[in-house]
Formats: sequence, structure tokens, C-alpha cells
Amino acid sequence: MTTLAAHITPADELVRALRAALGAEHVRTDAGDLERYSKCTIPWRSLCSAVVFPGSTEEVAAVLRIANEHRVPVWPSSRGRNWGYGTTLAIENGAIVMILERMNRILEVNEELAYAVIEPGVTYEQFNAHLRERGHKLWIDCIDGTAQGSVIGNAMDRGVGETPYGDHFGNLCGLEVVLPDGTVVHPGEAVAGSKTWHTHKWGLGPYIEGMFTQSNLGVVTQAGIWLMPEPEAYNSYVFEIRDVRHLPDVVNAFRQLALSGVVNTKLHMINDFVSMTVLTQRINEQVPGRGPLSASDLQALRRKYGISPWSCAGGIYGTRGQVRLQRRLLRKALARYGRLLFVSNWQLPIIEGVIAWSWKSTLFRRITELLAQTSLPVLESAPYVHKILQGIPTDYFVKHAYYRHNQARPNQDVDPARDRCGLIWFAPILPFTNDAVWPYLDAAKQRFVAHGFDFYVALLLMNPRSVICLMAIIYDREDEGETTHSRALYEELLTDATSHGYQQYRASLESWAHLFTQAPELARLNNRIKAAVDPANILAPGHYGVGSPVTPPSP
Amino acid sequence: MTTLAAHITPADELVRALRAALGAEHVRTDAGDLERYSKCTIPWRSLCSAVVFPGSTEEVAAVLRIANEHRVPVWPSSRGRNWGYGTTLAIENGAIVMILERMNRILEVNEELAYAVIEPGVTYEQFNAHLRERGHKLWIDCIDGTAQGSVIGNAMDRGVGETPYGDHFGNLCGLEVVLPDGTVVHPGEAVAGSKTWHTHKWGLGPYIEGMFTQSNLGVVTQAGIWLMPEPEAYNSYVFEIRDVRHLPDVVNAFRQLALSGVVNTKLHMINDFVSMTVLTQRINEQVPGRGPLSASDLQALRRKYGISPWSCAGGIYGTRGQVRLQRRLLRKALARYGRLLFVSNWQLPIIEGVIAWSWKSTLFRRITELLAQTSLPVLESAPYVHKILQGIPTDYFVKHAYYRHNQARPNQDVDPARDRCGLIWFAPILPFTNDAVWPYLDAAKQRFVAHGFDFYVALLLMNPRSVICLMAIIYDREDEGETTHSRALYEELLTDATSHGYQQYRASLESWAHLFTQAPELARLNNRIKAAVDPANILAPGHYGVGSPVTPPSP
Repeated sequence: MTTLAAHITPADELVRALRAALGAEHVRTDAGDLERYSKCTIPWRSLCSAVVFPGSTEEVAAVLRIANEHRVPVWPSSRGRNWGYGTTLAIENGAIVMILERMNRILEVNEELAYAVIEPGVTYEQFNAHLRERGHKLWIDCIDGTAQGSVIGNAMDRGVGETPYGDHFGNLCGLEVVLPDGTVVHPGEAVAGSKTWHTHKWGLGPYIEGMFTQSNLGVVTQAGIWLMPEPEAYNSYVFEIRDVRHLPDVVNAFRQLALSGVVNTKLHMINDFVSMTVLTQRINEQVPGRGPLSASDLQALRRKYGISPWSCAGGIYGTRGQVRLQRRLLRKALARYGRLLFVSNWQLPIIEGVIAWSWKSTLFRRITELLAQTSLPVLESAPYVHKILQGIPTDYFVKHAYYRHNQARPNQDVDPARDRCGLIWFAPILPFTNDAVWPYLDAAKQRFVAHGFDFYVALLLMNPRSVICLMAIIYDREDEGETTHSRALYEELLTDATSHGYQQYRASLESWAHLFTQAPELARLNNRIKAAVDPANILAPGHYGVGSPVTPPSP
Repeated sequence: MTTLAAHITPADELVRALRAALGAEHVRTDAGDLERYSKCTIPWRSLCSAVVFPGSTEEVAAVLRIANEHRVPVWPSSRGRNWGYGTTLAIENGAIVMILERMNRILEVNEELAYAVIEPGVTYEQFNAHLRERGHKLWIDCIDGTAQGSVIGNAMDRGVGETPYGDHFGNLCGLEVVLPDGTVVHPGEAVAGSKTWHTHKWGLGPYIEGMFTQSNLGVVTQAGIWLMPEPEAYNSYVFEIRDVRHLPDVVNAFRQLALSGVVNTKLHMINDFVSMTVLTQRINEQVPGRGPLSASDLQALRRKYGISPWSCAGGIYGTRGQVRLQRRLLRKALARYGRLLFVSNWQLPIIEGVIAWSWKSTLFRRITELLAQTSLPVLESAPYVHKILQGIPTDYFVKHAYYRHNQARPNQDVDPARDRCGLIWFAPILPFTNDAVWPYLDAAKQRFVAHGFDFYVALLLMNPRSVICLMAIIYDREDEGETTHSRALYEELLTDATSHGYQQYRASLESWAHLFTQAPELARLNNRIKAAVDPANILAPGHYGVGSPVTPPSP
């Protein structure tokens, strides 16, 4: 494997100006750092010329002003954990990568009105710990990705979480934004010190907060975020569909449950292969080293781990009476189609105890697996599901990125980009109907198999009307053939989806140049706004297809 | 009373061009029409030079292109019912007023995914009737204002309704917009024929739909709108607070109920005077002709009508079991602070029957009033409340605008602008806490009384964290003194609110010039965007403080 051959030397004056503004230790230009922040799990190469770590809004503004003077693009990233979409990578060589991890203050927690104000460096782990340690009766919404991800960063990319607060951008309220020219604006705050900046989403006059998501029109340096008040009662549930012929009924049931508000979490429905990638790695199993799992291998692994063809997970919250009633409604709607299991807070330590004991005793393990009708590793995931649905993050699930990796995955400090895992996300959003979902997934699966990959798909319920089909292309980066296939598969998936009228809910760097080819008026409007706020085109030019890239993409 | 003396003659070529584009009958320049569309309930004068009625997106684009050529501002309005905020009035003289009422098609109703696609001319009445006549199991959210209002128009002004779908802009999804230069864009539709244009709110790339609300950056000619699936069960409720010392407890209870999702409608809490303006007119009561009601007059009227100092209304929806449980939770939280009454669909015809009978028989009426512990007129409003909370609009409540009018109000065809009623809305939004709400309302009330007006306030729960303090200045337009006072009171309310950090959720023309005086960076950003999409500044210049007015405001 090669490393990027040469590193790009930024102009001396540029570095001097950045060091003067941020302090020398927060401006990195040595080859190791440049290499580190030019890594991603998708097959794209570019090398930045400097990495800067501003410590405040003023320092972010200073970086942007300096970049304007020197006409160098700046690519901001909150904590750089956006694996599979782009991590910290700029499209082009020579950019300044700006990491906001030093700005990690939790500025306010308002318990009465259930919101907080945070900086982009705040992680899920830190945010959850902060609230719990101080005894706040407020829950965050986290992702099932890494606990070290940025809360604001994910929301800016319009990521989706788990609980009723899982529309991450939808639950931001009141942003501080540094425009590309270094001006600081507070969209939503029309009067000085507005008391509803963080409680009323639309502000006054044109609502423009949304324009700073999936774009490059400003750098968000602070945001209000709505939090879930701790409910009197909470249950997580896992629903396993063992007969795929029931899938259409399940989709109809969940759509009705979601439209009527009984299901108000971001329901996750995952296929068997998703479970597999969490539970094991290819190198651990007795299957051929290349190509997708055969039907019989898949069947054997399903049996080994007690995995269902499809599994769903969600949560219910409320008073004890409400949770009881919701359990009844879920059972009534779903029980005939599969196995529905609820976990409550008082059961959690018991389950964890049983799991711990089962790992120690083979006999105990056999009894547990028999009673649970599944394997210990599958059972082990239940407490993580239960915790995530109350805002307690974990790195447990993110290990899927290592499925085709040639070495054993780490138990801690998971970092697929550093470890050269191959992972590309492709996430079109579809109407939540059987007519849309199943034909699309069947066709997508054929594409995966044709390129030698297993079909990984998680359906995430964005809202009662739309579902995200989150697909991962997991490939071996050290294998040139697989890398080529990953790229070809991605292109085909993008073309297929587009031709069916399905657009992505969130897009990786590999597709940015193509996002608006079918919507030239919209592209022109985005670019007119871009030109108005960033005339020198220095802020992440080309990010999400907005503004022209400074240099043509060089994949 | 005066009419506007002269009417402004538009250039012949302009009129010719408009007539060629729309047909002669859809371009009005006669004095009567100009006068009619230059009317408002707020004390502001301006006279348009033409009124145009485009019939399609293409015709809207044509009007804007012609306006660009002739450098004449265009002020669009869906149906022109925005009384108390500006109706169809341009800030300046000489504008073209563009009314979209001919564009009133309901283009799609999707029952499976619970949404529709409509044009801006569609009214609440028409929309509700359309769904019910065709047997769709979908409910609209309407306002308690006029049934003839535009569904899209209200959403563009970010108005608030009643049910869980009452955040009107929040429930739009997928807009067709004509930009000021006549270009048609579909924000949210990144791929041609996107299947989730009307089901996934944020689209792909920068989310810019919000920019077209409370602004002048485009004319919305089509919108997707999410609808509520008809629930298995529904109750409306009225909650009367008879002892004002309980108000802080009630606010705390409602905030907790809203945060936990038990209250998910746009709860309305109205003071006694609001009820009074719906039930009667000043000219019908034996009270002094001028100035606010004295404490004893108010007390007497309260007794006469059986009005509580504060009344609240909301709805609960779900399965029969869920509605039963929510009733229990509301009773547990509220019953100790006042009288809580639920109305279900099966009770409605009985209540309506009793009301009809009571109007016919004095004895029956006495018994009814005794049992209901209120007056027949108050009781009569309950069925309207019940219907509004399931999307059935009425003009019953909008009659409040005639309270100080010198003639008897109409029973049908309510039009306060035409009838020269005096009404200005002032609607700051506050954190939904006792610390914020009550001191603010006490101070505002003093301002009302000092200017000789009764204090009208409705608290509308925008979301669990924010409440709109909707105040109406109801004045006699024929009385010069009252008109002057109405304007002075408005200015004081605006100054007071701003100095406390309270901004409006929606603003009348009278305040537009002042909206961003404390937020110069935000104003500059709005204006940069305006200049980028409307370089000639022809679309409603100055609307919501965006872009400079073509001529200085001439109030």
C-alpha cells in the first residue's frame, strides 16, 4: 500500500498568519498530521496542506479571514468521525482542514425547557455523561455510530438518531454561524438576547438555519438542542421477523403505527448481514475468502448466531400506563409476524448479569441460549440497544466497518479510517411503502452480489412517511479489485436510485459532483446563494455540490 | 371617512404586457378594485396601481418577468385574508398586487402516506370539504380565523393552527417556487420526479425551503402538506380556570404535559376579554362607549355570559384506549385547578340538539345553563371548538374583529378589512415559563389600559418550550383618537418586547422596518440573499424587513 507521496507545502505567510491567530501548536503542517487528516474509508485521495484547531468562534472567523486573503479553501469538520461519507477529507488537494474539537463546551443546560447549548466539539459520550453526572433529568439522542462523534457535526450533516428526538437537525434550535467572510450571525435571533432563540425553531423573517446544513455557507460554532425529558417509564423492544413473507405486513403495520404516533422513535430494521457484521468478522468464519456469502454459508451463520432475516428495534416512552398501553398496541399489530421482546430498566441489570455469567459457564450459556432462542452474542447486543434508545452511546455497533478487514478489530478506540477499513455509505430515502421499498432493495441486492459484496441494508424510519435505505459497501481496502468494485457499485447504485426518483438523504463525497445534475435550477439557486455569502469560494467549495470545486475532483 | 384620493396610473405598456400574459379580465386597474385591494384593518395607507390574478405557475412567472422589465414591485397574496398583519397591502404606493386565488387546485391526495399537494388559492373550507366529500380518512389542520383563508398563505406567514399538525410551515414538505426573475425551482427535489419530495422534509444539500417563508425571495405556487390520519378516537376539551391564582400551576402542568407529549395540540389559553369579543359587541352591552371596561363592568359581563377569567382548549387523538388514558392524565394534572370538560364525537350531536332547543325555549335554556354552569352563548362555542380541532373550519371566532365596530357584525361573509374594522395583531413569542409569561402580560395589559383599550390576549402553545402571546388591538377605525392610540400602543408593545428580548413569531407590516434593528449582521445576510435572487428588488421589497422598501414607508 502506498501513502500519499508528497505533502503540499502551504505558503509561509499563510502558516505564519494562522499561527499568529491560533497559536503555533494549533496549526499543523508536518507530514504525519497531514496524512492523518487526509484519511477516509471511501476510495478517494486528497492531501490537505494544513490542519488547524481553532479554540473559539473568533478563531474560526480568523481562519476564514486568513483563508480569504490567501485564497485557500477551508474544510471544516467537528470531530472528523464522518466515516463512510467523507471523514475530514477535502475534495481537492491543498486545502486547510479545520477541526473544531477544541470547542467542546456545554454552555447551558435548561432543565425547565429541556434544551442545552453546545459547541461542535461536544461528543455524544461527553454530552450524555455531563447530563447524567449532574443529575439532569434530560436525555440526549445519540447515534448507533461512534460515541466520539460530534453532536452538532452529525446534525449539520442531517444525520438521524434513535429516539423521538432522532431528527438531529430538526431538534437544533438557534445557531451561531461564522460566515465565510468571518462575520458572526445568529439566525433566529432577531432581537438582542432573544429569550426564545433556543426554544422557537423558526425565528423571525426568512428561516435560514437549514441553509447551513449539508452545505458550505457557514461554520456553526454553537447550537441550541432540544432534549428529551426523562420519562416516568421506558421500554426498548426488539422485533424479529423470521419469515420474510411477512415483511410487507410489517411495513404496513409500522407505517400505521408511526402515522398514529405509537412508533415515534427512528425505528431501525436491519437485515441479517448487518447483524453479522456487528457480531463477527469475515476472518473469524469458515467461509470463502472472497465474494459474497453463499446462501448456504449465510444460512449456516444465521443458525450459528441465531440471527433472524430481519430484526427491528425501537423504544417506547411515557407514564407507566402509557408504556403498558403502547406495548399492548405493538403486540396487537406485530406479534403475529414475528417475535417481539420488550426490555425495561429493571430488567436490564438482570439481563446483563445473565450475559456475564453465560460467558463464564458453558452450561449456563446453553441454558441461556435455549431460553432466549438466540445466541449469546446476539443477546449481548440487547443492553446496548436499550442504552442507545435512552441516549447512552456505545462503540459496540460501529465495529461493523471492520467486517472485511484483514486484522482483528479493536475493542476500544475504534477508528475505521485510521485502520484503513473500506466503507462507503449509500443512503437513498424512499416513501415508506411496500411498493417502493422491496423492489428497490431486490434490485440493489443484485448490484451488490454482482460486484462480489454482501448486501448490507438498514431501514431507518426518518418519519412516518419516509424511510432511509442505509446501505454499506464494506470492502477490503488492501485489495485493489475490491476497491475498484466498491467504486463501480457505488456509481451504479447512484444511477439506479436517481433513475427511479430516489434521492439520498445524506451523501458521500463520491457523489457530490452529481447531486444536482437533474435539478439545474436548484443548483443555480444554491450557487447564487453561495456566491453571495462566499464570493471567493473558500469554504469547502463543492461540498454537497454547492459552489464549484476549486480544482476538478481527483479521485 | 376618507377614501384614498387619487389612484395611481400604471404605465400603459405595463398594463398591456400584463393583459397579454394573463388575459385582460385578470388585470384590474379600475379605482374600485385598487381601493378594495388596498384595504387593511391596520392603520396604514397605500394604494396599488394594478391587481393581477394569475392562473398558473407560468403566469406568476410572467408577472414577475414583466415587473422586472418595468421595475415595478409586486406584492403577492394567496387569498388576501391576512387581516391584522397586512392583508393585501404593499408598504408603498404604486405596487402591483398579485392575488393567487385562481390557483386553487388540489393536485394530489395520498392516503397511504397522508399528504396532499395543493395550490395557494386552496382555502381551509375547500380543502376540508374536498377530503370529506371523497371519503378520505385524512384531516387538515385549520385555523380559528376565517375558513376562507389560504392554507399555503398561512403557512408562508408561519401561522399556527390547532391540532398536532398545527405548525403550518413545519408540516409543508416540497415547495414549487417562482423566483423573482421568473425561474421555477423545486427546493427539496434534487432528482427529477423525486418520490420523497413531499414525504422527506429536508431534501438534499442546503435546506432552503424556510427561506421562502416570512420573506420575499420567491412566490410559492404549490406545496406538499402532511395531513393527520383520522384517529380511531378523538376528544376535544375545554378547561376553565376560575381562580387566577392557579395560573402558574396550570402553566407548569401544561408545560410538563406538552414536553411528555400528552398535550400535542396547539393549546389555546384565552383571557376573558377574548371570549367576550367572540360572544358580543361593545354596542350590544350597557357599558361606557369609550375606554376599557371597568373592573365591575368586566365582572358583570363575565357573570352575564358565564365566562371564566381564563379558558383553554385542546384535543386528544388516538385509539379509544389512548384517548381514555390521556383523559385520565389530563384530569390528574389539571382537575384541581379548574373545570375540565371533554367532548367526544358521539356527544356532539346531542350538545348541538340541546343548544338548538335551548334557543327555542326559555325554560329549557335556563335548565341547560344551570346544568352547564355557563351561558348558552358560551356553550354554543363548544361545537365549533370541537370541529376546529378536527380540521373543520368556521368563521364563528373571527367575528371578534368587530367588537368595537359601530355596526352589527355580519353572520356570513365576514370581512373585517372590507367592513373597516380596526384590528392589529401583536404576537411576541415567549419561553413557556411562569417567569416569562405573567410579568410580561401584566406590563402589556397596563399599556393597553393606558391607551384606552381592553386587554386581549390568547396564549398559543407553539411547541412545548415556547408560547405565542397573541394580542389584538381592537379599535374603532372611524375614531381618529382611537386610531392614533392603536398605533402608539403598538409601538410601545414593540419597544417593550424588544427590550425584554422577546421577538415576534409573526409580524405586521407596521413593524417590518424595525424587525432587525438589533440584528444588523442577520439583516445584512438576509439582504445579501435578497440581492442575489432579486437584484432589481421587485418582489415585495421590505416585506418582513428583507430588502429595502422601494419608497420610504408612508404610514
